[in-house]
Amino acid sequence: MAEQVRAIRTRRTILSAAAKIFEVHGYQAATITQILKEAGTTKGALYFHFVSKEDLAQAVLAEQDHSITVPPRVFKVQEIVDIVMLHAHRLQTDPMVRAAVRLTMDQLAEGLDRSGPFLRWGEVGVRLLKEAQARGELVPHAVPAETADVIVGSFAGIQSMSQAVCDYRDLVTRVSVMLRHVLPSAVAPSVLASLDLAESRAARVYAEALETARAQKALGAVG
Amino acid sequence: MAEQVRAIRTRRTILSAAAKIFEVHGYQAATITQILKEAGTTKGALYFHFVSKEDLAQAVLAEQDHSITVPPRVFKVQEIVDIVMLHAHRLQTDPMVRAAVRLTMDQLAEGLDRSGPFLRWGEVGVRLLKEAQARGELVPHAVPAETADVIVGSFAGIQSMSQAVCDYRDLVTRVSVMLRHVLPSAVAPSVLASLDLAESRAARVYAEALETARAQKALGAVG
Repeated sequence: MAEQVRAIRTRRTILSAAAKIFEVHGYQAATITQILKEAGTTKGALYFHFVSKEDLAQAVLAEQDHSITVPPRVFKVQEIVDIVMLHAHRLQTDPMVRAAVRLTMDQLAEGLDRSGPFLRWGEVGVRLLKEAQARGELVPHAVPAETADVIVGSFAGIQSMSQAVCDYRDLVTRVSVMLRHVLPSAVAPSVLASLDLAESRAARVYAEALETARAQKALGAVG
Repeated sequence: MAEQVRAIRTRRTILSAAAKIFEVHGYQAATITQILKEAGTTKGALYFHFVSKEDLAQAVLAEQDHSITVPPRVFKVQEIVDIVMLHAHRLQTDPMVRAAVRLTMDQLAEGLDRSGPFLRWGEVGVRLLKEAQARGELVPHAVPAETADVIVGSFAGIQSMSQAVCDYRDLVTRVSVMLRHVLPSAVAPSVLASLDLAESRAARVYAEALETARAQKALGAVG
């Protein structure tokens, strides 16, 4: 058991080191040697957990997919809003998420398939929008796959713009404005009127997610 | 006069070479030596036109701002649509525009201010949306600066997503879907009903822009 905990910790250390090296140098220029040095671990340990640089990068990319669920809300559309807000907040505050998003947007990363995050976020969006549709939350002509892709694509660009213009300081504001522009084309007016799209929601959803994670951990320790 | 033409040509050669080197290596890793080799020109010629690597990069960034005007339309909002469509088409077909957009999205480019293209595109959008507003083309609660930023930011991300997923093949489709989602939040319904947001518009607007450029050139030769 202690060994397993140690292995999980080592994997985490290597992953954090890889995230940092990819963020500083870009995927192309980053080397396993740099990652080993940053992690302070052996080649053997690294290759026990990851078979290649691309494998490491895919693991970093996948880090942004964690905790993309929020508690059930009265409206499924609010869950979509909250997932987007939560992601914006984590992008501002969590170095691992920031590294994962930057790697997703690393257009020089030859040989690294970066479509994964776009497709996985798109699938989350489609699933929730289809549930919203089944509950009558969308307008009749809404196409879940199209709306999901617009939200995912727009988010990607808005975070780039926010980074280039002011190092993410206005990210949550921009995301709130984007949602207010996009959602009325897909969401029924009566549902729109009940949504909370305020910027302040991002920090609140994040605090709630943290609390839930803590409670689950405590429950696990008892059980 | 012949000398002036030669100087313009040399500047163009250097700019194309710089665009290519920045696209392949990224801003950070690109060197003046590589650009000189690609351009087949002398250090003296390069420094006559550009004072530094950043100066070169800013000139490449500015290349995407050219021909961002389209002929007047009945609705100002259609002009915005056409500028966005034209940019999508040029991004698919013009290596210089592609290089400029990729440089804009080069998050590793330390020491290079990449906010320019975002801000300049935003200004074009605000100006046209304010004109549209003055003509009564927008809904009463529309905020031109917000809508302009949503369009510019969303475009940036949608082109990244299209590049990562299928090397720009579906770019125009995605842009058309994005506009259909964003515009109804800002544009008056009666104007919306008259807009052409079809994918096929991109190629048509491009052909028209080429034709106008040719006609102006011919006029210049006569005058």
